[in-house]
Amino acid sequence: MRCDRLWTDARLATMAGDGLGIVERGVVAAKGGAILYAGAAADAPAFEADAVTRCDGRWITPGLIDCHTHLVHAGNRAREFEMRLEGASYEEIARAGGGIVSTMRATRAASEAELVATALPRLDALLAEGVTTVEIKSGYGLDTDSEIRMLRAARRLGEVRDVRVSTTFLGAHALPPDYEGDADAYIAHVVDAMLPEVARLGLADAVDAFCETIGFTAAQTGRLFEAATRAGLPVKLHAEQLSNQHGAALAARFGALSADHLEYLDQAGVAAMAKAGTVATLLPGAFYFVRETRLPPVAALRAAGVPIALATDCNPGTSPLTSPLLVMNMGATLFRLTVAECLRGVTRNAAAALGLGDRIGTLEAGKACDLAIWDVEHPAELVYLMGLNPLHARIWSGR
Amino acid sequence: MRCDRLWTDARLATMAGDGLGIVERGVVAAKGGAILYAGAAADAPAFEADAVTRCDGRWITPGLIDCHTHLVHAGNRAREFEMRLEGASYEEIARAGGGIVSTMRATRAASEAELVATALPRLDALLAEGVTTVEIKSGYGLDTDSEIRMLRAARRLGEVRDVRVSTTFLGAHALPPDYEGDADAYIAHVVDAMLPEVARLGLADAVDAFCETIGFTAAQTGRLFEAATRAGLPVKLHAEQLSNQHGAALAARFGALSADHLEYLDQAGVAAMAKAGTVATLLPGAFYFVRETRLPPVAALRAAGVPIALATDCNPGTSPLTSPLLVMNMGATLFRLTVAECLRGVTRNAAAALGLGDRIGTLEAGKACDLAIWDVEHPAELVYLMGLNPLHARIWSGR
Ligand SMILES: [Zn+2]
Ligand SMILES: [Zn+2]
Repeated sequence: MRCDRLWTDARLATMAGDGLGIVERGVVAAKGGAILYAGAAADAPAFEADAVTRCDGRWITPGLIDCHTHLVHAGNRAREFEMRLEGASYEEIARAGGGIVSTMRATRAASEAELVATALPRLDALLAEGVTTVEIKSGYGLDTDSEIRMLRAARRLGEVRDVRVSTTFLGAHALPPDYEGDADAYIAHVVDAMLPEVARLGLADAVDAFCETIGFTAAQTGRLFEAATRAGLPVKLHAEQLSNQHGAALAARFGALSADHLEYLDQAGVAAMAKAGTVATLLPGAFYFVRETRLPPVAALRAAGVPIALATDCNPGTSPLTSPLLVMNMGATLFRLTVAECLRGVTRNAAAALGLGDRIGTLEAGKACDLAIWDVEHPAELVYLMGLNPLHARIWSGR
Repeated sequence: MRCDRLWTDARLATMAGDGLGIVERGVVAAKGGAILYAGAAADAPAFEADAVTRCDGRWITPGLIDCHTHLVHAGNRAREFEMRLEGASYEEIARAGGGIVSTMRATRAASEAELVATALPRLDALLAEGVTTVEIKSGYGLDTDSEIRMLRAARRLGEVRDVRVSTTFLGAHALPPDYEGDADAYIAHVVDAMLPEVARLGLADAVDAFCETIGFTAAQTGRLFEAATRAGLPVKLHAEQLSNQHGAALAARFGALSADHLEYLDQAGVAAMAKAGTVATLLPGAFYFVRETRLPPVAALRAAGVPIALATDCNPGTSPLTSPLLVMNMGATLFRLTVAECLRGVTRNAAAALGLGDRIGTLEAGKACDLAIWDVEHPAELVYLMGLNPLHARIWSGR
């Protein structure tokens, strides 16, 4: 059988079925950017390939998927971090020009090219650890033009690098100072002006919000989700990060792709997510960075069969993290996820969180040929090691 | 003035004096592997250099120093990590061939060349983040031949890579099964046979022990330290990691270079260390990985003026960590060290912990020209970022 590329002498963690889907003597064949065959060498048809790569027993996993990031943003909040360590209060930091408003100001002031340029080192750090699909949110522009510029920059990143970018409109990330004291008016503006324009331009693959005491109420979030649904866009939600706003249950009512963070998720929320098939995207980098002590209800999610994804939440305020490998280690160390759960969390469940479960996330015929090839003895090392990147090669769409 | 190499248009964090020792418009000149000048361009003599590197405003810090590692070891404990996450008890893991004894067995079975080969990816990960000096301990051989082989492998690593290796004899790391039930006899063997041979061969720069309920008693540690002192070797100690054995105070009585871990250190230990000039080497990677909740007494160490170093403690059981940048982030996030404390912890205070404070650790004339050149806007980013390596170039001994 003809194919474009063939990887032989590999061990596969296909991530299909339960566990890791291990194939000890495996081959992967690609044609037209998709997987033609991934499985046991013994069962494979005889392939004729334009290029054959011997993997010398290395492990192949699906390319990693970072399904929750704020990769596009301008400004630099390292000094704010430094001040906080020196004991500065949030007020002092705000007075010194810090906080999310500082990121908003810098992002509003940046051109699309500048947003691309400042995001590239972060994107490249992800790619260097085997990421082949990344979600990128808007949410630091908080006006129509700036939100659109952020989303254009996100799309552009998918053109300048070999990576699939899934964009999310997060206009309801925070209340911009222009609307201080009138969150309802801002949400009305998001619903009536920003979202329709973003949808018209085809710039968003999903719509997200921050449902929290310091964000938007469940009622405001619901208005946004109704508008998103009318516009034909799937929703997801920053939910239950700092308190229980019953956001996950709300999101589930709208058939959300995912509810994210979830430290304060209750049993009713778990049940609603299970019923709706909503993915629980856990963000241990933010948990670690803000020194949260309340753990997400992993046992309840497991028991209810809610798929768990893991993501970097890469953002300048609460998770300046660009390592999916470290995310897995934190998922295991801090949240006690198993190795298999961590690996599923950055592959097939992350794909489901993006609504791309039929196209990426496992090594199965018909899916995109996105591969990460690793110099490890066992995939457990990808979760166990901290700060050592054993990526040997990264294949995106078969190349 | 003649020099070999010159770096211009740089910003320096010299780490000399208090704070970061910032020089906004700096130059560094090297001659014969040492720093000839590091400081303000305006105050610099006119240099004639064989090679000039323009740094375009990048930051130069001293090369980083990882002053506590177990980099040399064989075996792989990722599967043990996986089992623990699946709920396996320590007994089950031991029965499955895990634990420190598994590392000892694999290390005893490995040749010197194999020990070098398996340590190299770990060393290369450190070097990729700007490390120019690394301490490496023995302690998984636990018999004379194997301990010597480990130390030879450590020295060899300093020949195959451009890095300064400081070796530490840690024969008193754990009780080998051959001596089960008779720790006194093993310590006598370490004192009478192993240490003299290691010293005779010049393979160790210092002597270390694990003083703990599951390690060796203070009395046993004291016997070892007396022998080390007789052999002319400085001492250091794994102290107060899991309980207060008053190990740091003991170490201080022997003028120890450092006491390491220190979560259970008390005020008397702090005072003893301050008086002796013993460095407190904190190991946040181990704290994180074993999910310790007791914090080392940072405020007391600060108040007493005890220098604080930070290190990876890279080891397969409790800290499979090879990122000094992540160590700094953990030092800040978990231990609330300031940015300046974190950077001092992997430069000048780490140098002091190795007894090399006069040769490395700051950008000062006369010290080795070990530089890390960073693509950052401010050194605070080196502590703030997680998983992004902004190293632009690494210079070791002026080359
Ligand atoms: Zn987020
Ligand atoms: Zn150690």
